[in-house]
Amino acid sequence: MAREKPLFDRVALIGLGLIGSSLSHIMRREHLAGHIAGNARSQATRDKAVELGLVDSIHASPAEAVEGVDLVVLCVPVGACGPIAAEIETHLKPGAILTDVGSVKQAVIRDVGPHVPPGVHFMPGHPIAGTEHSGPESGFAELFTDRWCILTPLEGSDAAALEKLKQFWQACGSQVDIMDPNHHDKVLAITSHLPHLIAYNIVATAADVESVTESEVIKYSAGGFRDFTRLAASDPTMWRDVFLNNKEAVLEMLARFSEDLSALQRAIRWGDGQKLFDLFARSRAARRDIIEAGQETAKPDFGREH
Amino acid sequence: MAREKPLFDRVALIGLGLIGSSLSHIMRREHLAGHIAGNARSQATRDKAVELGLVDSIHASPAEAVEGVDLVVLCVPVGACGPIAAEIETHLKPGAILTDVGSVKQAVIRDVGPHVPPGVHFMPGHPIAGTEHSGPESGFAELFTDRWCILTPLEGSDAAALEKLKQFWQACGSQVDIMDPNHHDKVLAITSHLPHLIAYNIVATAADVESVTESEVIKYSAGGFRDFTRLAASDPTMWRDVFLNNKEAVLEMLARFSEDLSALQRAIRWGDGQKLFDLFARSRAARRDIIEAGQETAKPDFGREH
Repeated sequence: MAREKPLFDRVALIGLGLIGSSLSHIMRREHLAGHIAGNARSQATRDKAVELGLVDSIHASPAEAVEGVDLVVLCVPVGACGPIAAEIETHLKPGAILTDVGSVKQAVIRDVGPHVPPGVHFMPGHPIAGTEHSGPESGFAELFTDRWCILTPLEGSDAAALEKLKQFWQACGSQVDIMDPNHHDKVLAITSHLPHLIAYNIVATAADVESVTESEVIKYSAGGFRDFTRLAASDPTMWRDVFLNNKEAVLEMLARFSEDLSALQRAIRWGDGQKLFDLFARSRAARRDIIEAGQETAKPDFGREH
Repeated sequence: MAREKPLFDRVALIGLGLIGSSLSHIMRREHLAGHIAGNARSQATRDKAVELGLVDSIHASPAEAVEGVDLVVLCVPVGACGPIAAEIETHLKPGAILTDVGSVKQAVIRDVGPHVPPGVHFMPGHPIAGTEHSGPESGFAELFTDRWCILTPLEGSDAAALEKLKQFWQACGSQVDIMDPNHHDKVLAITSHLPHLIAYNIVATAADVESVTESEVIKYSAGGFRDFTRLAASDPTMWRDVFLNNKEAVLEMLARFSEDLSALQRAIRWGDGQKLFDLFARSRAARRDIIEAGQETAKPDFGREH
């Protein structure tokens, strides 16, 4: 059933990478915006966005892009949110909703919060969705389907604005959860940040092993290694900013990971087969639960083509 | 073009899990065996194999299964190879090829070697292929397509037997490499064993974090964690045996991984964004190379359905 009137008259996408371009596709499909104003730092991205029809107007300056806009979505690396907020601060329309998609919430609140003028509704958000691809050509309308979007509204936030942002993400296909920003950052540290860190690390380790050539690592990667290369192919700027801005929670999870790994290492060294078996056997449940929760395909090997 | 005469008159599959059942499917399709004799330890697996038509004859005893057979493939966990070799030793047909599919080669040679009678060609092998599923129902004919199979023939091996085994794996769709067993075990330690160990470990760590509930880990796993649960859902017995039998190489790779991880941890603690960026940026090449080598899908997100 097509929406008669768009959810927002005018939306600005600040940043037109994977998330920004995917939002454009789903907003077009679901008729969520009367007008999409786009901004990207590089001329190449702006040109591509126009060529792909992602935006109705393109702006070299974020301040210009947000003029008269009802919903502003910052789709940039976490570290870029503060500077952009400072740039757009005096250009935001009273009553507008300002949100973001960053994987760290306390740092975004710390950096963006001081630049939010009275009457503008700042509602930090985080869609738990992505692929390893980046850039304006990588987006697609289904990216958010059946994924979770976490909103971390500040105390005293406007209930109507929160409700409208919830509607927006639901219209994008997502389920919405409300969470405390501190808790969000811990949850993401273990479900997303640590996995990426580990993936980046194992790819680096494999590249440096002298006794095994890089071409051997590539050839025989179907033994398991290739799985890790997907996360490790994610955007380096985005991930640098995540680790710089969620330091405490990441270091906490990393310490636990290393502690557990030392115990496993000891079990291998001492040939403790029972301990290895027990630990390995209990892991199967996690995948089954994730599949049942609709967050993973039930097909073997991620449904990779054979 | 259909093969007129099967490559082997009679083949025995000892073990009918993912690898054994996949071999049955591809041998049927490519007409590689005149008769497939099957053996599995459990009655349930034997019944299922018969029901699925995986075998032409089913045997509760491996010794019975290998009688008069031209190719014996041990498709069992690495730790089971030695005991089975002892059982079948006096039943092997002179001139038969005896091979395996284990992910560790030195240990299999150590355990099986002493039980190989003169005139039987022992050719250790390892197809670098699999999924996270196990059991006789999990096999499919395409499992080995475009994957590598590594053979680690012993010194003085029969050239004609080696050639025939190569033909067999090529007919299964694989490319064949010949390697020294010691080197094989190092290559697999980094491309397969360490990745599985890390995956098992992070799943265990996530389950134990008190500040984040298991249900939160499940719900938000699309942030990256879910990727690891695939490897961690692999057969626990098989993997226990791998770690018990490739201890030295795994501990070496693990030590390097931990060292690299400590350096990353330090970069996070000290906010060294340049170091993080440089390391993350170089990882993209690995995935691109793996895709170009035909060992990974080029589709985003492993081609998962959206």
